[in-house]
Amino acid sequence: MSEDRLPSRSENFAEWYNQLVVRAELADYAPVRGCMVVRPYGWALWENIQAALDQRFKATGHVNAAFPMLIPMSFLEKEKAHVEGFSPELAVVTIGGGEKLEEPLVVRPTSETIIGHMYAKWIKSYRDLPVLINLWNSVLRWEMRTKLFLRTTEFYWQEGHTAHATAEEAQAETMQMLEIYADFAENVAAVPVVRGRKSESEKFAGALRSYSIEAMMGDTRALQAGTSHNLGENFARAFEIRYLDPANTLQYCWTTSWGLSTRFIGAIIMVHGDDQGLILPPRLAPHQVVIVPIHKNEQEKAVVGEAVEKLEAQLARFRLKVDRREGVTPGFKFNDWEMRGVPLRLEIGPKDVAQGTVTLARRDRPGKEGKQSVPVEGAAQAVGDQLEAMQASLFQRALEFRTAHTHQPTTYDDFKQALEAGWADVWWCGRGDCEAAIKEDTKATTRNIPLDQPSGGGTCIRCGASASERAIFARAY
Amino acid sequence: MSEDRLPSRSENFAEWYNQLVVRAELADYAPVRGCMVVRPYGWALWENIQAALDQRFKATGHVNAAFPMLIPMSFLEKEKAHVEGFSPELAVVTIGGGEKLEEPLVVRPTSETIIGHMYAKWIKSYRDLPVLINLWNSVLRWEMRTKLFLRTTEFYWQEGHTAHATAEEAQAETMQMLEIYADFAENVAAVPVVRGRKSESEKFAGALRSYSIEAMMGDTRALQAGTSHNLGENFARAFEIRYLDPANTLQYCWTTSWGLSTRFIGAIIMVHGDDQGLILPPRLAPHQVVIVPIHKNEQEKAVVGEAVEKLEAQLARFRLKVDRREGVTPGFKFNDWEMRGVPLRLEIGPKDVAQGTVTLARRDRPGKEGKQSVPVEGAAQAVGDQLEAMQASLFQRALEFRTAHTHQPTTYDDFKQALEAGWADVWWCGRGDCEAAIKEDTKATTRNIPLDQPSGGGTCIRCGASASERAIFARAY
Repeated sequence: MSEDRLPSRSENFAEWYNQLVVRAELADYAPVRGCMVVRPYGWALWENIQAALDQRFKATGHVNAAFPMLIPMSFLEKEKAHVEGFSPELAVVTIGGGEKLEEPLVVRPTSETIIGHMYAKWIKSYRDLPVLINLWNSVLRWEMRTKLFLRTTEFYWQEGHTAHATAEEAQAETMQMLEIYADFAENVAAVPVVRGRKSESEKFAGALRSYSIEAMMGDTRALQAGTSHNLGENFARAFEIRYLDPANTLQYCWTTSWGLSTRFIGAIIMVHGDDQGLILPPRLAPHQVVIVPIHKNEQEKAVVGEAVEKLEAQLARFRLKVDRREGVTPGFKFNDWEMRGVPLRLEIGPKDVAQGTVTLARRDRPGKEGKQSVPVEGAAQAVGDQLEAMQASLFQRALEFRTAHTHQPTTYDDFKQALEAGWADVWWCGRGDCEAAIKEDTKATTRNIPLDQPSGGGTCIRCGASASERAIFARAY
Repeated sequence: MSEDRLPSRSENFAEWYNQLVVRAELADYAPVRGCMVVRPYGWALWENIQAALDQRFKATGHVNAAFPMLIPMSFLEKEKAHVEGFSPELAVVTIGGGEKLEEPLVVRPTSETIIGHMYAKWIKSYRDLPVLINLWNSVLRWEMRTKLFLRTTEFYWQEGHTAHATAEEAQAETMQMLEIYADFAENVAAVPVVRGRKSESEKFAGALRSYSIEAMMGDTRALQAGTSHNLGENFARAFEIRYLDPANTLQYCWTTSWGLSTRFIGAIIMVHGDDQGLILPPRLAPHQVVIVPIHKNEQEKAVVGEAVEKLEAQLARFRLKVDRREGVTPGFKFNDWEMRGVPLRLEIGPKDVAQGTVTLARRDRPGKEGKQSVPVEGAAQAVGDQLEAMQASLFQRALEFRTAHTHQPTTYDDFKQALEAGWADVWWCGRGDCEAAIKEDTKATTRNIPLDQPSGGGTCIRCGASASERAIFARAY
């Protein structure tokens, strides 16, 4: 790790982010344009995200499987909107085993089409439904401008694909998965989100209705942090996914898909981080606690070492790291673990040992304010309490930031002003041309139409036409 | 599931295997030639394999990460033996984002080259060593003749890649990982293996020395079930992976790589299965126990249902499935779960409820022999005991089978005879031309040169030259 400081978050947010990702060793640029290497520390964070989601998927009856990364080009062409949406982003395999292929194969940008093909083969009867499958994999969507985690050609994600007998069941599944994402974001990642429906122009290529969770980053821009799509009968008709109902009539299935990706790591960085580096929510941090032993000579080292071992045993239920590196100062270690966002640091030196205490420092409260000395016998309790308190505090802080930067303008001038440094929550007529004009004027897009709507109606912020729903507009990643 | 029977394992092993994989819903053929879909039941088995290995990797200091699936063609060309070995099997991306690429990109057949490129960037000093990284991903190697799990263009695996300061450390790592594979195979999958060194002609393209674990399938053919490679300085020199030693001298690293794939699922099927279908080792089975309630009317259903719920609570520490499907007979369910290899079946009907018992049937002992009636209050104990007993018994049976079909011929005629239906464990001169001639004569290859060698020496089974090592020859998958 380099000794010099990060760019300031408030002065140069973009550069702060770019350097932080690399210097905290979350990820690195790969030699192939647009691709990234997720380094062990970043992958450990992703593994914790995976575990939290996977547990929720399985608790709601979903199972995991694996589908091939190669898809015949002709499959994509079966659903018109889908191929139009994804064509410009495809990576195409034209040579296999030394020979030119008769039909080019696409490296999956998403798996709806090959899922459709296989579900059509597997599903025969209403007894086979619902099918509730999730995949953990990576997908390719060609990108020219790389931003690690946020915009890369290859990214890692999960994609859920379900098939149902009825429209109602498909809609219920779509909403259930949106709520699972929101629950994960808020209660595990401490990232407050707005649950809502995407506009027609922003929906998934091939979907009937798309929903998203949207989060506000530290520069007030929005990030779509997870999406859930009701695909209607679109893919079922394109791939002939049909079942015999109890009356022996052939019916089309209703399908859904939903995904959350390594983009979410970008959200965690940009919501919680500060000028010193990452701040990781305790429920996801690869190391929840780091112990830094402090000693000046061999005798102190022995005394402190013994105390550290006891402390380690006491704290075994936490994800714990003891930094025993030689040849670097405690100060270097403090900075290093602050850069990496470890929630709690325990410092223990000869004085602490003599007093039977340990010094506890909270990552989200720099300086003296976040430090306390606790008796060793109460360390496990204190660590548990502080991790919980920090988890709650990170969420609260992010929520207050979002609230402070979300405006309800009532004139178009105020609306444009609001979008300079925040979100605008406004009545919108719902028309695509109005949405396009706003984007032209402000670079802001509809993020979503929140599920949580006031009663009544109003007039569109731009055109003044009657509007029955409020929408969130913002500049977005 | 179709009602008709599987082909007989003893009469048509190949067809028995092919049908079993599909009918047990482990995997299915994908629409892209050579590729497979791993269905939820197969993937759940793989997840259990992953958990057992991942735990062992992490306990020995390894961490996971993710590297891009796309590799510049020029990277492969940096290591001569490597590119020669993999060129014929490559899938090549030539179009990205609608444009022809300047340099074609290979979908990884394995990641040594891109790992080499990044390690060269990350490793500066002896303090950065060792680097101990593992990847869970899929790779592509073009195949024309598909056999699910055993030979597919895309397969799932883990690939470990480590870098060390010295030859000794790299060799120790190589052997440690081989032993972890062997431990997993024998103690988790109940598959006995021979640990050994690959011959020069069979080693990994680019390795200094390769080691493997080899298992005997139910038709006596061998399957290489995991490999561990000491790559020497080959990749370090090709990619300039160097470090400053404590004396400030620039040194090349020593690297290793090691992998175990979904092929191993093929081994589990072919080692343990029988004419009724799969037999899964208890430590890996997605469902260790299935409960089949038996009732003829609503009243019996209520009585049995209540008993099943109590039993479920009692057996909560096992991976448990209760088959409450309506509209199919208990007999159908028995066959279905036998096909899927669930280790223990618990049958519970009104008579059992009245007697306070439950009938326990072991998958590896068909008919009455494997059935016993146990008191409900002792069910958890009995289930635990039987799962342990079955785990041990599967291993023992496989070991006895291998022993019975491994011969130590001393003449070339006996050697050829032995290879018709088994393995030959013989003195071999170690020369490639002798190995090639044997392959020509018998279709058998050297599987490995066991680590466990007798003292002394002998004469080569084919050429009669002096031989210092014994080797295993066999026909292989």
